[in-house]
Amino acid sequence: MSDALDFVESNLPRFRAELYDFLRIPSISAKSEHEGDMRRAADWLADKLDAAGLEARVDDTPGHPIVLGRWHDAGPDAPTVLIYGHYDVQPPEPLEEWESPPFEPTERDGRVYARGSADDKGQLYMHVKALEALLAVDGSLPINVVVLAEGEEEVGSDHLVPYVAEHADELACDYVVISDSNMFAEGIPSILFSLRGLAYLEVHVTGARSDLHSGQFGGTVMNPANALAGIIAGLHDSEGRVAVDGFYDDVAEWDEETRQGIRSLPFDEDEYRRELNLPALVGEAGWSTLERLWLRPTCDVNGLLSGYTGEGAKTVLPNRAMAKVSFRLVPDQEPSRVARLVRAHVERVAPEGVRVEVRELHGGRPWRAKLDGRLVDAASSALEEAFGRRPVLQGEGGSIPIVVDFEEQLDASALLVGFALPGCNLHAPNEWFPLDAFDRGIGALVRLYGRLGK
Amino acid sequence: MSDALDFVESNLPRFRAELYDFLRIPSISAKSEHEGDMRRAADWLADKLDAAGLEARVDDTPGHPIVLGRWHDAGPDAPTVLIYGHYDVQPPEPLEEWESPPFEPTERDGRVYARGSADDKGQLYMHVKALEALLAVDGSLPINVVVLAEGEEEVGSDHLVPYVAEHADELACDYVVISDSNMFAEGIPSILFSLRGLAYLEVHVTGARSDLHSGQFGGTVMNPANALAGIIAGLHDSEGRVAVDGFYDDVAEWDEETRQGIRSLPFDEDEYRRELNLPALVGEAGWSTLERLWLRPTCDVNGLLSGYTGEGAKTVLPNRAMAKVSFRLVPDQEPSRVARLVRAHVERVAPEGVRVEVRELHGGRPWRAKLDGRLVDAASSALEEAFGRRPVLQGEGGSIPIVVDFEEQLDASALLVGFALPGCNLHAPNEWFPLDAFDRGIGALVRLYGRLGK
Repeated sequence: MSDALDFVESNLPRFRAELYDFLRIPSISAKSEHEGDMRRAADWLADKLDAAGLEARVDDTPGHPIVLGRWHDAGPDAPTVLIYGHYDVQPPEPLEEWESPPFEPTERDGRVYARGSADDKGQLYMHVKALEALLAVDGSLPINVVVLAEGEEEVGSDHLVPYVAEHADELACDYVVISDSNMFAEGIPSILFSLRGLAYLEVHVTGARSDLHSGQFGGTVMNPANALAGIIAGLHDSEGRVAVDGFYDDVAEWDEETRQGIRSLPFDEDEYRRELNLPALVGEAGWSTLERLWLRPTCDVNGLLSGYTGEGAKTVLPNRAMAKVSFRLVPDQEPSRVARLVRAHVERVAPEGVRVEVRELHGGRPWRAKLDGRLVDAASSALEEAFGRRPVLQGEGGSIPIVVDFEEQLDASALLVGFALPGCNLHAPNEWFPLDAFDRGIGALVRLYGRLGK
Repeated sequence: MSDALDFVESNLPRFRAELYDFLRIPSISAKSEHEGDMRRAADWLADKLDAAGLEARVDDTPGHPIVLGRWHDAGPDAPTVLIYGHYDVQPPEPLEEWESPPFEPTERDGRVYARGSADDKGQLYMHVKALEALLAVDGSLPINVVVLAEGEEEVGSDHLVPYVAEHADELACDYVVISDSNMFAEGIPSILFSLRGLAYLEVHVTGARSDLHSGQFGGTVMNPANALAGIIAGLHDSEGRVAVDGFYDDVAEWDEETRQGIRSLPFDEDEYRRELNLPALVGEAGWSTLERLWLRPTCDVNGLLSGYTGEGAKTVLPNRAMAKVSFRLVPDQEPSRVARLVRAHVERVAPEGVRVEVRELHGGRPWRAKLDGRLVDAASSALEEAFGRRPVLQGEGGSIPIVVDFEEQLDASALLVGFALPGCNLHAPNEWFPLDAFDRGIGALVRLYGRLGK
């Protein structure tokens, strides 16, 4: 393994240069004018997998292609690891806020700035380079490997689940490893113990046949925007809890060890508040900020629209009002059950004089890691050796719905180990990735795969 | 007076034809590309006033011109009547919903369909024709007259109050007569006993430095859209009253006679509900629909905006939320005092973790008619003779702020007598005006001016 680490060490300049080529391809999945770039990025990645020594191909889907790389010569007794990542990126807008061009990787202060550097090309490519190092030095890998890189993660991964179902044989594995998240802080590697799920709804309130004049009708009809405000306000109680009957029924309790672990993390609530420029932090009573983020479900309005929203005073009494409302879920909440509970709640509390409709847009299940196996042990040791510090366990407030699908469809355990940092500007202008984490992270992955093969 | 009525009778076809010429001019004050049409409409109207026998001119303002017509030969002992109206119209959009072109007057079913037919060119022009009839037959008027027609009523009348102040001598009058409202129903003429006022505000709620990811931050910060919903929901109590301290302090009591008069009007709440396509009518407890509309103040959201409002699911935790909220006021509420009360209320109830700002956009005072004088007596008799039925007294839920200014600045009493009908589609596609009301209404105005001169 030390030869492979030496190989990494001496090839880092080339690894970075290759990553920058990858980052120069504007593989924006949301925009149809980049369809050619999507194909170019997929082909580029397949070429690199091939050059590293994997059997690589690009599979078409009804959307953007999926890149598959396989190496299966470790034999049936060696474990198989599926490495999942994505080569598509978020749109870079607003462009004027970038200090250097989004698709021209630029090094500043130990970081590389570029769209996709952290999410997820940079992290995905670290795995490719770790595999290359092992293959270059040993001529073989200690494990069987499947690399699966999709091009639709930023637009909903619509074609990934069917692809996994159709290719279950080729994708069969013991472990799934994903690097698409953060370390807890600079120098503090981490392993995720959970992801939150999501239930995303729209609430539509409809009143009269048309918009009305607020003078000629105001006071005689229920205003849909006022009604919607009442419905939304009623989704929380005065303690910051979600006030929907049955909402907490399936929320799993966490053990004291996990909560103790969270409390021991070096986290400064006041710095978090200041960095967000907020007068106060607010959330469910009885839980700390990190617990609210990782252990507790939420209800947030994502969008509100009604009536006249331009400049000045228009005296319209709108006949429609709409809210996008989403719930972040925790194990073992089910998105479809939560959606059903919320619909029932909204229909029950809707005031007289308007019609209310709840539409279910999107759902994703929460995930909880199995932390007591060989996978996490190997990752912990690998990260400790590479970063000089034992990784912490942390939750993730966001959602990666595919993780539960992988575990269920492939009967595998997932490891989520990320190398980005809080503040890396994912989905925002000036996305960056820490170069030190790129370098050390590749070493950590070499160690991880080495340990899993033992 | 009977000669003048005969003159009206025999000239009705010409009067209508002239009105249609007036309606063909697309005098849309809101759109700068119609500046030439605005000038053309003003000149056209001044020509007609001149042809009728008044001394007419067009006065420039920093906005659209004001048309002034005067006839002052009735002597200092005769009363002076100021007739106010407006020659500008609302934009006609959406054009595809018009059954005939908005600026090509078309007669159907005893109505003329055109933008401005009811609001307000049709009603304004009735006065011009009544004056023409009296002057044509008698060579003189029994009263002194000032006709004041502005071109900015649909865009806020910004330049009218300063104009009235500057021209107070020329505009000096005993009475102000305005026809820019409805009859209570077909065949039922009416005189207004009140107008509601208006306090129009914007509420802005601001959270973090930027929009946040609802997964990576949700649950740890107050969501500005949720906070705004709570603020709006708290503006009403469970009885439909406005829950702002002091809001009702200045609401004048109405006499039992007025309430009895309202109860005696032929009004079918269920038909009103059905016509609006509503499951139920909702308003302040303890008041009927017409009372809620005419005697009681309101609080309506006119616009709501926050976060992502496009198609699909975007998991943004918005950092801003905005509501336009307006209050229709009744005598003797003061818009600026109401705005102050609402601001204090919102600042008091605003939740922790966000910043709240209340901006005052627009205000207009409510008005209450003096119903016991010569003006209303003359109008009642004139309407009864013309329509064969004594007029009813009704309120108006909308606002015409200039009425209070006229009364105060000119020390005059105002009469609001309108000839449009509920359902005339003011500000909407397929605006129309009843031809019978046009014909009878001119007769009513001839009688009104004749009686005031006696």
